[in-house]
Amino acid sequence: MKINFSERANGLKASEIRELLKLTEMPEVISFAGGLPAPELFPVDGMKKVTQEVLEKDGQVALQYSTTEGFKPLRDIIAKQRMSREGVDVTGDDIIVTSGSQEGIEFSAKIFVNEGDTIICESPSYLGAIGAFKAYRPNFSEIEMDEHGIIIEKLEEELKKNKKVKMIYTIPDFQNPTGITMSDDRRKRIAELAKEYQVPVIEDNPYGELIFEGTTHPSIKSFDKDGWVIYLGTFSKTFCPGLRLGWICAAPEILEKYIIIKQGVDLQCSTLDQRAAALFMQKYDLNEHVEEIKKVYGKRRKLMLESMDKYFPKEVKHTNPYGGLFTWVYLKEGLDSAEILKEALKENVAYVPGGPFFPNGGHKNHFRLNYSCMSEDKIVEGIKRLGKVLAKYY
Amino acid sequence: MKINFSERANGLKASEIRELLKLTEMPEVISFAGGLPAPELFPVDGMKKVTQEVLEKDGQVALQYSTTEGFKPLRDIIAKQRMSREGVDVTGDDIIVTSGSQEGIEFSAKIFVNEGDTIICESPSYLGAIGAFKAYRPNFSEIEMDEHGIIIEKLEEELKKNKKVKMIYTIPDFQNPTGITMSDDRRKRIAELAKEYQVPVIEDNPYGELIFEGTTHPSIKSFDKDGWVIYLGTFSKTFCPGLRLGWICAAPEILEKYIIIKQGVDLQCSTLDQRAAALFMQKYDLNEHVEEIKKVYGKRRKLMLESMDKYFPKEVKHTNPYGGLFTWVYLKEGLDSAEILKEALKENVAYVPGGPFFPNGGHKNHFRLNYSCMSEDKIVEGIKRLGKVLAKYY
Repeated sequence: MKINFSERANGLKASEIRELLKLTEMPEVISFAGGLPAPELFPVDGMKKVTQEVLEKDGQVALQYSTTEGFKPLRDIIAKQRMSREGVDVTGDDIIVTSGSQEGIEFSAKIFVNEGDTIICESPSYLGAIGAFKAYRPNFSEIEMDEHGIIIEKLEEELKKNKKVKMIYTIPDFQNPTGITMSDDRRKRIAELAKEYQVPVIEDNPYGELIFEGTTHPSIKSFDKDGWVIYLGTFSKTFCPGLRLGWICAAPEILEKYIIIKQGVDLQCSTLDQRAAALFMQKYDLNEHVEEIKKVYGKRRKLMLESMDKYFPKEVKHTNPYGGLFTWVYLKEGLDSAEILKEALKENVAYVPGGPFFPNGGHKNHFRLNYSCMSEDKIVEGIKRLGKVLAKYY
Repeated sequence: MKINFSERANGLKASEIRELLKLTEMPEVISFAGGLPAPELFPVDGMKKVTQEVLEKDGQVALQYSTTEGFKPLRDIIAKQRMSREGVDVTGDDIIVTSGSQEGIEFSAKIFVNEGDTIICESPSYLGAIGAFKAYRPNFSEIEMDEHGIIIEKLEEELKKNKKVKMIYTIPDFQNPTGITMSDDRRKRIAELAKEYQVPVIEDNPYGELIFEGTTHPSIKSFDKDGWVIYLGTFSKTFCPGLRLGWICAAPEILEKYIIIKQGVDLQCSTLDQRAAALFMQKYDLNEHVEEIKKVYGKRRKLMLESMDKYFPKEVKHTNPYGGLFTWVYLKEGLDSAEILKEALKENVAYVPGGPFFPNGGHKNHFRLNYSCMSEDKIVEGIKRLGKVLAKYY
């Protein structure tokens, strides 16, 4: 049986993270490989109350088809409660509900990118976005980052010389995988460049609310006066990832395309989950819940950074994120973190090798660590084990 | 602001049904335009119990990320309870959970069709599939149907002469929009042709279980020995559409591509909804629930067919479906059902004009009627009103 797949499907292979996660799922492994929120912080009791109430009061409607755009009260809540903290003044009409921010990422390539066009992203960037984009057979232009995010001069240089750039994909807050946060002036400048070069910016912000220190940054979207910035949000990191609820905030003529695409792909998100989420956010203060998450993650992050400084070889460098879920480790040139992972797994500790986060390859001497879903004692023990493995290479 | 969309996005316009549904949603309109299941039949009490139990027993897991393939017990139930009645002997490993069958439809084009390739479908076919396929810029080859479904000789002729055919899309049971059901020998023959011409068949079967008379037909997949048939199922018509749960049953090497695509698009379906659905089907007998639905829809169908015979001009013809949600009306050549709809709306009655169900255009002298979600007195009154409108054209 020789199946004739499309060219795009021929090019798609199972993601390395995916295969890897299977290995790291053994209970004896202390895994820093995932990107999961801590389940012990999920508002299970609140969710029990609201699902009951939704089914009690509006059961038939909650189990029926509903509109592609999403449940209007939820869209209003997103505009009022979430987008306003991003410095963006919109109503529910400017929002559609998506299946996490992942759907917004995938749809963006579908809407803006022809085969052979260029997508600009940070170097490195989110693996799940790279994988989703690849189905549209683009070229990737990776722009280097420093500790203040994407380097604007290099971004502008690329926009100037490459007329095939159709989209800039960026994660400005506590970036996945590096944990790096973009400075405010660069955010403003990216919004200006988008307009100047007429290239849409996809601002993916799953982690921005999880800030442990200092004050929140304004979103790139908040500097956007002409609709060139498309903001992707999600409840996966601040509420419940299993409900698969996120959103897109964009100008009407752009949002219209996303709606048509969503209609073709899955018609709508779960009516029940949307109504439960909306009622939860009417009855409870999500910001209070986020404060609890921040306390726990902030402690875990501090412990992980301190443990690395204590147990890793001195030459090993890492980022110092002040929010989000991840830190990024730099090994010396020539080392291959995928190879080292095999050794780490022998010691029952795991991370994600850095290579796949670079769409054009290379950079094997990095890896990503997650600190959100591991208890404090396991963080110390896991980093200690990892330090022992790394010591062999230094 | 001049946005540079991709070629595929430029070609996408809001679906006519979508715009139309807005007009027909006024409470005074008796609308046969939708395709909604009857909400009064949704198992609201059962859903209350199972969501409670899932959150009580496994709350943290139920709100967390889970695998792209879907919740294993649900996949096992689908294999055992649903696929076995289709004459297909598989396990949960041969199934992935999707967001309704819509996702399976869209992913199929993504996996099998390059720009300029041909998709074969019935003439007419499901509007939501045509819309989803269009994003991949294929050509459509429509194959005529008679009262036993797609005409096999015409299908084979097309397969023989058109080497760009990459996929056959068919709805063999109580087809949307016509209500026509394919004969068993044609099902067998399609499975053979798929192998002979090495073209995958997408068998979309949302309505097959809703059979009011006679015995169930074996699926096309049941005649498939070599993996050329991909079966799409859904719980939207037999359980709760708002949960957005469907499935794909396919050979492992094909299923693998669907999994990668799904991972890129939305990672997974709602964990909570999948667990609630699985528990529902463990605690209750879905077949019993389907029997209740069939009783109600069967009566409504009978009443609609009888009312058409009583109140429509004698020259107007319609299909006589023995299952599913729809019947299809044939007007005389030259009439335009979209124009007539404007008159119908003045009488506060609505249907879906037939034109958009033909991907290559034409055929405006048809329309689709839905009988599943309107009470019996409204069916009689609505058909009476429609008869009055149609009488003006005869």
